Amino acid sequence: MSSGYIITKRSLEALKKRVDIVKFIQEISNKKQLPSSETPPTEGRNTNEGLKKRQDFLLEKTGRSYPNIFNQNVIEDASVVNGNCENFIGTAQIPLGIIGPLNILGTAAQGDFYVPLATTEGALIASYHRGAKASRMCGGITSICFLEGVQRSPVFRFNDMGEMGKFLIFAIESSEKFQDIISTASSHAKILDVKFNIEGNQLIINIEYYTADAAGQNMVTFCTDVLCKWLVDNSPTKPNIWFVESNYSGDKKAAAVSFIHVRGKKVSAEVHLTKEVVEKILRCKPEDMVQYWQSSTIGVIQSGSIGAQGHVANGLTALFIATGQDIACISEASVGITRMELTPSGGVYVSVTLPNLIVGTVGGGTSLPTQRECLEMIDCYGNGKAQKFAEIAAGLALAGEISIAAAIASGQFSQAHKKFGRKKTQ
Amino acid sequence: MSSGYIITKRSLEALKKRVDIVKFIQEISNKKQLPSSETPPTEGRNTNEGLKKRQDFLLEKTGRSYPNIFNQNVIEDASVVNGNCENFIGTAQIPLGIIGPLNILGTAAQGDFYVPLATTEGALIASYHRGAKASRMCGGITSICFLEGVQRSPVFRFNDMGEMGKFLIFAIESSEKFQDIISTASSHAKILDVKFNIEGNQLIINIEYYTADAAGQNMVTFCTDVLCKWLVDNSPTKPNIWFVESNYSGDKKAAAVSFIHVRGKKVSAEVHLTKEVVEKILRCKPEDMVQYWQSSTIGVIQSGSIGAQGHVANGLTALFIATGQDIACISEASVGITRMELTPSGGVYVSVTLPNLIVGTVGGGTSLPTQRECLEMIDCYGNGKAQKFAEIAAGLALAGEISIAAAIASGQFSQAHKKFGRKKTQ
Amino acid sequence: MSSGYIITKRSLEALKKRVDIVKFIQEISNKKQLPSSETPPTEGRNTNEGLKKRQDFLLEKTGRSYPNIFNQNVIEDASVVNGNCENFIGTAQIPLGIIGPLNILGTAAQGDFYVPLATTEGALIASYHRGAKASRMCGGITSICFLEGVQRSPVFRFNDMGEMGKFLIFAIESSEKFQDIISTASSHAKILDVKFNIEGNQLIINIEYYTADAAGQNMVTFCTDVLCKWLVDNSPTKPNIWFVESNYSGDKKAAAVSFIHVRGKKVSAEVHLTKEVVEKILRCKPEDMVQYWQSSTIGVIQSGSIGAQGHVANGLTALFIATGQDIACISEASVGITRMELTPSGGVYVSVTLPNLIVGTVGGGTSLPTQRECLEMIDCYGNGKAQKFAEIAAGLALAGEISIAAAIASGQFSQAHKKFGRKKTQ
Amino acid sequence: MSSGYIITKRSLEALKKRVDIVKFIQEISNKKQLPSSETPPTEGRNTNEGLKKRQDFLLEKTGRSYPNIFNQNVIEDASVVNGNCENFIGTAQIPLGIIGPLNILGTAAQGDFYVPLATTEGALIASYHRGAKASRMCGGITSICFLEGVQRSPVFRFNDMGEMGKFLIFAIESSEKFQDIISTASSHAKILDVKFNIEGNQLIINIEYYTADAAGQNMVTFCTDVLCKWLVDNSPTKPNIWFVESNYSGDKKAAAVSFIHVRGKKVSAEVHLTKEVVEKILRCKPEDMVQYWQSSTIGVIQSGSIGAQGHVANGLTALFIATGQDIACISEASVGITRMELTPSGGVYVSVTLPNLIVGTVGGGTSLPTQRECLEMIDCYGNGKAQKFAEIAAGLALAGEISIAAAIASGQFSQAHKKFGRKKTQ
Repeated sequence: MSSGYIITKRSLEALKKRVDIVKFIQEISNKKQLPSSETPPTEGRNTNEGLKKRQDFLLEKTGRSYPNIFNQNVIEDASVVNGNCENFIGTAQIPLGIIGPLNILGTAAQGDFYVPLATTEGALIASYHRGAKASRMCGGITSICFLEGVQRSPVFRFNDMGEMGKFLIFAIESSEKFQDIISTASSHAKILDVKFNIEGNQLIINIEYYTADAAGQNMVTFCTDVLCKWLVDNSPTKPNIWFVESNYSGDKKAAAVSFIHVRGKKVSAEVHLTKEVVEKILRCKPEDMVQYWQSSTIGVIQSGSIGAQGHVANGLTALFIATGQDIACISEASVGITRMELTPSGGVYVSVTLPNLIVGTVGGGTSLPTQRECLEMIDCYGNGKAQKFAEIAAGLALAGEISIAAAIASGQFSQAHKKFGRKKTQ
Repeated sequence: MSSGYIITKRSLEALKKRVDIVKFIQEISNKKQLPSSETPPTEGRNTNEGLKKRQDFLLEKTGRSYPNIFNQNVIEDASVVNGNCENFIGTAQIPLGIIGPLNILGTAAQGDFYVPLATTEGALIASYHRGAKASRMCGGITSICFLEGVQRSPVFRFNDMGEMGKFLIFAIESSEKFQDIISTASSHAKILDVKFNIEGNQLIINIEYYTADAAGQNMVTFCTDVLCKWLVDNSPTKPNIWFVESNYSGDKKAAAVSFIHVRGKKVSAEVHLTKEVVEKILRCKPEDMVQYWQSSTIGVIQSGSIGAQGHVANGLTALFIATGQDIACISEASVGITRMELTPSGGVYVSVTLPNLIVGTVGGGTSLPTQRECLEMIDCYGNGKAQKFAEIAAGLALAGEISIAAAIASGQFSQAHKKFGRKKTQ
Repeated sequence: MSSGYIITKRSLEALKKRVDIVKFIQEISNKKQLPSSETPPTEGRNTNEGLKKRQDFLLEKTGRSYPNIFNQNVIEDASVVNGNCENFIGTAQIPLGIIGPLNILGTAAQGDFYVPLATTEGALIASYHRGAKASRMCGGITSICFLEGVQRSPVFRFNDMGEMGKFLIFAIESSEKFQDIISTASSHAKILDVKFNIEGNQLIINIEYYTADAAGQNMVTFCTDVLCKWLVDNSPTKPNIWFVESNYSGDKKAAAVSFIHVRGKKVSAEVHLTKEVVEKILRCKPEDMVQYWQSSTIGVIQSGSIGAQGHVANGLTALFIATGQDIACISEASVGITRMELTPSGGVYVSVTLPNLIVGTVGGGTSLPTQRECLEMIDCYGNGKAQKFAEIAAGLALAGEISIAAAIASGQFSQAHKKFGRKKTQ
Repeated sequence: MSSGYIITKRSLEALKKRVDIVKFIQEISNKKQLPSSETPPTEGRNTNEGLKKRQDFLLEKTGRSYPNIFNQNVIEDASVVNGNCENFIGTAQIPLGIIGPLNILGTAAQGDFYVPLATTEGALIASYHRGAKASRMCGGITSICFLEGVQRSPVFRFNDMGEMGKFLIFAIESSEKFQDIISTASSHAKILDVKFNIEGNQLIINIEYYTADAAGQNMVTFCTDVLCKWLVDNSPTKPNIWFVESNYSGDKKAAAVSFIHVRGKKVSAEVHLTKEVVEKILRCKPEDMVQYWQSSTIGVIQSGSIGAQGHVANGLTALFIATGQDIACISEASVGITRMELTPSGGVYVSVTLPNLIVGTVGGGTSLPTQRECLEMIDCYGNGKAQKFAEIAAGLALAGEISIAAAIASGQFSQAHKKFGRKKTQ
């Protein structure tokens, strides 16, 4: 997070233009408790009355009006957002476009899909649409969801490794009971593995769950909380303190531990692009596309990224917003590997592997009005659909990787963004 | 991305229940060009006529209706999304809540802010709201935006290091002209630094720009494209091939190169929580909160994450959705450092440093109807506001880190999610 | 690997002083096959005759004499280095010092050890010696070797995921036979786990072995080679190509995959330093030592390192050189976690966890003359000693972490290096 | 550092066979101060008398003899190791072999070099020798040292960002004086850049030095110590505490911060292997070699390594041991990028880039008897030779990457280790 001398000096000069530095530093050191300020009314969390009170409060406090946010035609009944949003005041409206058909040959997803994407970034949808077209013309995208698992990783602290050891032995020897214990917290969760991590007098137990069709972060929290309490209550040794999550699980962040194994769902997708399609649809020479992939892989290694891919985050974010996923999980879901190689017949083989697709088709935001409709658009709403959704998501990512690689390799990247990404009216 | 023998075997058995493996493998190997399929009408990209055609197409092709997505009361004029969304079909509607007031003492942001957050994840807003309250009661959050810079990193390939060297020397010796050259592509962009990266016969030039109040990814693409063409046209040696982006810039991914320096804006925020506030508002012992921070920092190091923070992605994602930011950039923006320490008076010092805040208050999605209103709610719409917005964003992240640490340290984490995060009606 | 404009420009100027750039670039582009040059005689690889021929060759070709390297009193019989060194010409002689006694309470190592360290870095031994003393005065170091495993990870390539799938299924379903198959290659190796990693049409099989008291890299290569050939011969589908190692195993490099699990041996060591010992022996305030640990942990996180420790590499390298280990493995062995905390009684708890200790007490360089004596000095030569050796190694690392933290925290670091690290005679 | 349930359970069972668990846990929790134990005599640090006393002590305490370590013919005068080794007891003797000639076309190194390598790992020297031969037959290796710099990164802590800011401003504004200040500590060191890193109320100043022909870690410590004291003495605000190294410098560890920029010397080396040489000398098809490189690059990315190379650590370690380098620095020096591509004429282009070559030709262990002779063997002893040495080191690494890639790609890897890596007498 450092900057060299010249840039630092220039930043300091810019800062001095913005504030009176001496006064500002004094203010920092002299901060005192602030006089109480009115907070927005939190009662009536998900009622129309509560909503109205908060809207009135905002109008008064900020002296502005918010006709679009407050648009009553969008969510007529505030109880709809129950369980999704506290201090509810209205809605954010994100433009939705579609791409496709995206053709998928998967273990759960099969056929053509018109995929809804919510984005404010011009050129994104056009790019994914082009990738979908090219891959469809080459027989579609094979997409296989093979692994699943969501982790919680509580940590327990002891005086020394001896005390830790007693607890560890108890935990190992009672592991067979864990499934029964957690079943009081969830009827869906199944324990897949229990990993033990000794670090001096601290023990992390990394519990991996199958969470059915839910993304499952809450489910694994509730189960793990119950399990920890049982362990602490029944162990011959008590930890000095314990926490239900040690920040080892990889929740809401790109992390090697998740990349190396799985978090949510792991899906691999592939397509064999023909020479003709690369040249005519993607307007690129196959050799250049593959050369770009190689140079960009060396580039991304040098950047110190986890995994090696292009802009998987773009498509996944747009899909996650549209379909009520936990969008902050894009931090981990966008980690993966893209690979491109010349085929013997002069085309391009492309694969994308995403090991951290935290997605669900029940729970979270999936039942909200537009979110549910978007899931229904690809027949992915409700139980039994999560693997299907994951296979479509990986196929979508593949389409985007194809298109951006071709655009950069052929020199169209800048033009595409000029065409689609600029407000015409500005 | 691997799994042990037992889990792999179990996964294979699960897969066999889902598909006829033999047939599926045959289908994969026998893929052929698909018969042409109707694609959604792309003409009338941002007109109401085009919109209607695409909506009719979807209704017909999917055999379902989408009253919420197609709700005409939301965006009455399709031209509004011009530059933001191709194949426009309607809107995704995300619940908005507010937190605050979030009190910020910054170089650009000063005072109380009611911050709009768009999310579908229950408990998120309640948690950030609590952190805002606690920090406000302790004098507010100091938040300083010090560094700025957005990168594009083209790559040039040559036969050998000799050819590369000739080009490199030309590029170094003409660096003084770069600002003039790029000014034909943007009147806002200023070159901050030009970094050179030799890797055998490949040269990456990493150009760092000041992009004023825009997030700036398109701006730096256009400028770099012009600059590369100038270099290639004027250099005594031509590269065999070049690409406007080598995937070294860290765009749309967590990357060490960005974490170690800056991408977008770097902001550090801090607060000194008093013992009383930690105990009464956060219902936690200061010692436990600090112990949690330490254990979780060791935990996150073990996870192989970039940086060390808790759930910064949650708050930033909700803010980015609300305010028209490039939400896919959450991959990089959520990287940072959170630190918590006991103060001499028994309270808790907390800081959050976010070096990769890719944000803007002009361009992108900032002018869309609800997005603009959300920016206006915190007085951050338009020119001269990006640093202010970044300081608020870092303050927001700090509020969230406080709240989650206290919740986990005191054992309330699971309950909070039971209270706020479950659909009552399900 | 990049540098900013000013540094790059300065580097170019320095380079121009060193060489005639134009001529140098021409030479690069005009390289041609070189006339044949005499290579050192390779016959008599490990005989005294061969040795003599190579020494004579060197004397003639370089026009210098090498009395110390060629010292006949060191290795009188060249056959001693058989299996350790090709093109043998003599010996490198590294100064050896001892520290201790290092007191260990382990599962295999128990009691006092005088540990031999080979180094050329002044102050290193003095520092580890001090740490050993301090920890011994506090009851010694608990050191526990809990996990073991060495990996080889062959990769198999196919046309598509279908072909890969057929091979994968065959491999999973024949996994039970793997132990028998590899037993033809080694009677020591035991398969601990077989992990499968699908990445598009490429499959990595990561095989984890118990290698008894050998470091085991050759053992796992031989076993995996046999296993791969069996798989390829017997599978219903042949890979297009396969490689015995995919570079996924973490061999000879710091890698998250090894850090997150184990490579070689995982050992955790701890000590509770009393306030008195910290103050009198380490001449440091406990609070400052712990503060240093915390600041340095935040520092190392910012550096983008794997794990978080101080200078574990120093002690391990010196021990590895002394005892005939595979010294290049210091790349992975030096990855770990150091932790320091104030204890309730005002002392300092310190732990070091090293998950990638690739070590052996048989094979490799362990039987060479001085190497064997060094192993014998700590009673670690031969069968049944590898866990003991690993527990001593982790204890040693702990001693070093204690000493450097105290030295930096109390401001003695620079002085210590002035005292011990400067050639007096120069 | 975790392990799954089954492996953990098995480890526990193995542990129980090794120790009486209950008793062992009691011993851990009951540790007490140990009775004082005799420590080796430390007086006469580098005199023959002191040496003799320590040898006698060891003979008595361990009840064994150490004829090879104590061999008087190796180092006749103990004062030789002054500044290199405390508690000196004798020498570790490592077999030395040579490879070559390694032909280098560099900015400082030019011509044929017989490179001495010290190793105990069979097959290593044969492998590097083969790579040297192949590259020599293709015109030799171009090797360019372009960047240099060694860092120290002190950290300063304050009450709040205001206090930190005052200190920061003082430091920025007095940066021009830094060179004068440090010149009291070293006449060789030149400041190349001063980077500032704000993280809440902590400030890291990362100072980058040119250290002439020394590796320079002590030099930068002494300079930084003087500089920090000057800053603290003269600043209008004092830090609460400061440390001369924040563990941000990347010393003795693989770290992104060093990989992304430079630590020590950055060198890029390349060779264009002809089809004939690949087939006849390396006995491999060029296509397979390049395919191996690509698969192994995807493999190493998946392993979560920093950079992407094969076994650079092997050759560098052997060279570092032979030539008196700081061998623990192999942790950072072995980080880099290897690249292999088919050339238009059907051969293979290979490059290796090593940005963290911490090496020196003066100071450290370079003047010890065999170390100096090894440096002299490649004409790299003394002043003005460090860049030359770095260019040879990178060329060496390249030779090793060529050879291992060909060995694995053609299936010879296992055989080579059977031929060279097994003790014949065992």
